[in-house]
Amino acid sequence: MAQPTVPPTLDVIAIGNAIIDVIANCPDSLIEELGLSRGGMMLIDADQAKSLYEAMGPAREISGGSAANTLAGLAALGAKCAFIGQVAEDQLGEVFTHDIRAGGIEFDVPARAGTPTARCLIFVTPDGQRTMNTFLGASQHLPAEALDESAIASAAVLYLEGYLWDPEEPRAAMRKAIDAARAAGRKIAFTPSECFVIDRHGADFRDLIDTGKIDVLFCNEHEMAALLGHDDFEKGIAELAPKIPVLVVTRGAEGAVAVSQGQRVEIGAEPIERVVDTTGAGDLFAAGFLYGHVRGKTLEQCLKLGAICACEVISHYGARPEADLKVLAATVLG
Amino acid sequence: MAQPTVPPTLDVIAIGNAIIDVIANCPDSLIEELGLSRGGMMLIDADQAKSLYEAMGPAREISGGSAANTLAGLAALGAKCAFIGQVAEDQLGEVFTHDIRAGGIEFDVPARAGTPTARCLIFVTPDGQRTMNTFLGASQHLPAEALDESAIASAAVLYLEGYLWDPEEPRAAMRKAIDAARAAGRKIAFTPSECFVIDRHGADFRDLIDTGKIDVLFCNEHEMAALLGHDDFEKGIAELAPKIPVLVVTRGAEGAVAVSQGQRVEIGAEPIERVVDTTGAGDLFAAGFLYGHVRGKTLEQCLKLGAICACEVISHYGARPEADLKVLAATVLG
Repeated sequence: MAQPTVPPTLDVIAIGNAIIDVIANCPDSLIEELGLSRGGMMLIDADQAKSLYEAMGPAREISGGSAANTLAGLAALGAKCAFIGQVAEDQLGEVFTHDIRAGGIEFDVPARAGTPTARCLIFVTPDGQRTMNTFLGASQHLPAEALDESAIASAAVLYLEGYLWDPEEPRAAMRKAIDAARAAGRKIAFTPSECFVIDRHGADFRDLIDTGKIDVLFCNEHEMAALLGHDDFEKGIAELAPKIPVLVVTRGAEGAVAVSQGQRVEIGAEPIERVVDTTGAGDLFAAGFLYGHVRGKTLEQCLKLGAICACEVISHYGARPEADLKVLAATVLG
Repeated sequence: MAQPTVPPTLDVIAIGNAIIDVIANCPDSLIEELGLSRGGMMLIDADQAKSLYEAMGPAREISGGSAANTLAGLAALGAKCAFIGQVAEDQLGEVFTHDIRAGGIEFDVPARAGTPTARCLIFVTPDGQRTMNTFLGASQHLPAEALDESAIASAAVLYLEGYLWDPEEPRAAMRKAIDAARAAGRKIAFTPSECFVIDRHGADFRDLIDTGKIDVLFCNEHEMAALLGHDDFEKGIAELAPKIPVLVVTRGAEGAVAVSQGQRVEIGAEPIERVVDTTGAGDLFAAGFLYGHVRGKTLEQCLKLGAICACEVISHYGARPEADLKVLAATVLG
């Protein structure tokens, strides 16, 4: 890894899906009727998107996309961010573009004609759990040429979402981005996103980890198990920690664990009155943690920032923050 | 007015704008900076829509439209409804169409090519007040031919929003609908929607009232003042009540008054913990009241249903109900 020669001008640059979430409440019975995998994410094609949308109740459309949500949180906290992702030349593409720019995030990848902007049909059950069905549309066609390597070189952290490792073109773009970040001596943060992605690309992810390409890894306990092939939590931490400078494992309502340079810190989840919609919980946890990380805060402060941001986003519909995260963060940062 | 020869098969059919609301929080200062009329609604053209959208923070898109919101409430309460309005062949048109049908409302007007689906850019200040800026797009091109006169004849109540009286084509459609409803012996409910509409079309509205075309009139105290040319509340009620079988005047946080056949009932507003977004308060008040009306409830029950539905919709973003209105209504209806 090269040493950085110039100070970064961006805090975090991320590559991810450019998605509009379509969020509707639904009874538990509908999840079963439709044969959906409760709490999970599955990829759907245009026909499935049509039939699932028909089965869905009245919805709200809110910009989403895992890494884009993380950037929305980071920017709301005060970080300088840029996003790389692909939208189509359509109304939902305009909505995504507006929302990310309105959040103060640089976003310059031109919209492309053809396949429409990605949509994620999200069914929220009465317990607040979300079941996601993603039509990737334009998002999966992010070309490697869309990467602005100088922007990547200018960011302290390159953040990558595993979801986008699945389609071929963005995977190539992400590999190119990893090289660009490494050449500039920047850090790489990564989330495998979801167990099904690990099922398909676990070998790639283990290789990235084993070859020291990942500086900060975010996963939940199930993803850690999928990555390592066993569900012994302590053994998993012991295996991964030596290979990753900063390892962060979330455990839902049980809180989170971070291990860095031999130091291990655990925190509980923030208390919350009512979980409305868990969409974006992991994304915003990553936002809070990364904000602390780029600002040089302690591991405990980073975890607490993560927990606070996750707690805010599950208190309302949608995966983008609504409350003033700076105010919330002040309770940790003083 | 003809006597109805067959019982209605629909409770309410409404003609209104087919709009997607684009809702963002904003500081009070932005309302001033942009020169917007706080708490009001103004019509904007495509250029203004573009520049206002650029000035707007990250937003959520939720189906709206005044009469359409009222139907969403009515249908959620259990009424059988149909909507007449114009969307374009675009993604926002698909969203509007999905949401209204998913709410159980009949909607069969074909989407039209050309001008995009209407959008209302809504700035919500920290006090929950909404300031609306409407780009009417396709909505103002509803042709009179889009009316299904047999559907109008089959509904107990024809509900019309004054907003749509402004553009020429829908105004002609609404006049045609009034005649169709009257010929079938059905009731007509009307809201002038907003003072600026009354400024332009007050003479038409007064003529509708004076010629006995309106059976149920919904307005707020400011609209009543604009309609009558003075702001003496009691004098206004005394002037209007003899001309309208059911007069309903809302007074924001001060509650509402209804007068029918010499009986006058007043209620206070429902207590609410926090007003999040007042968008749709009047629309959902009308929904609750009309539901009681078509079910033959007392004037007091009708008002309480209105207040409960209005209270629900201002407790969250967007003008469509989120909670189970049937459950809420049971507190009034037993």
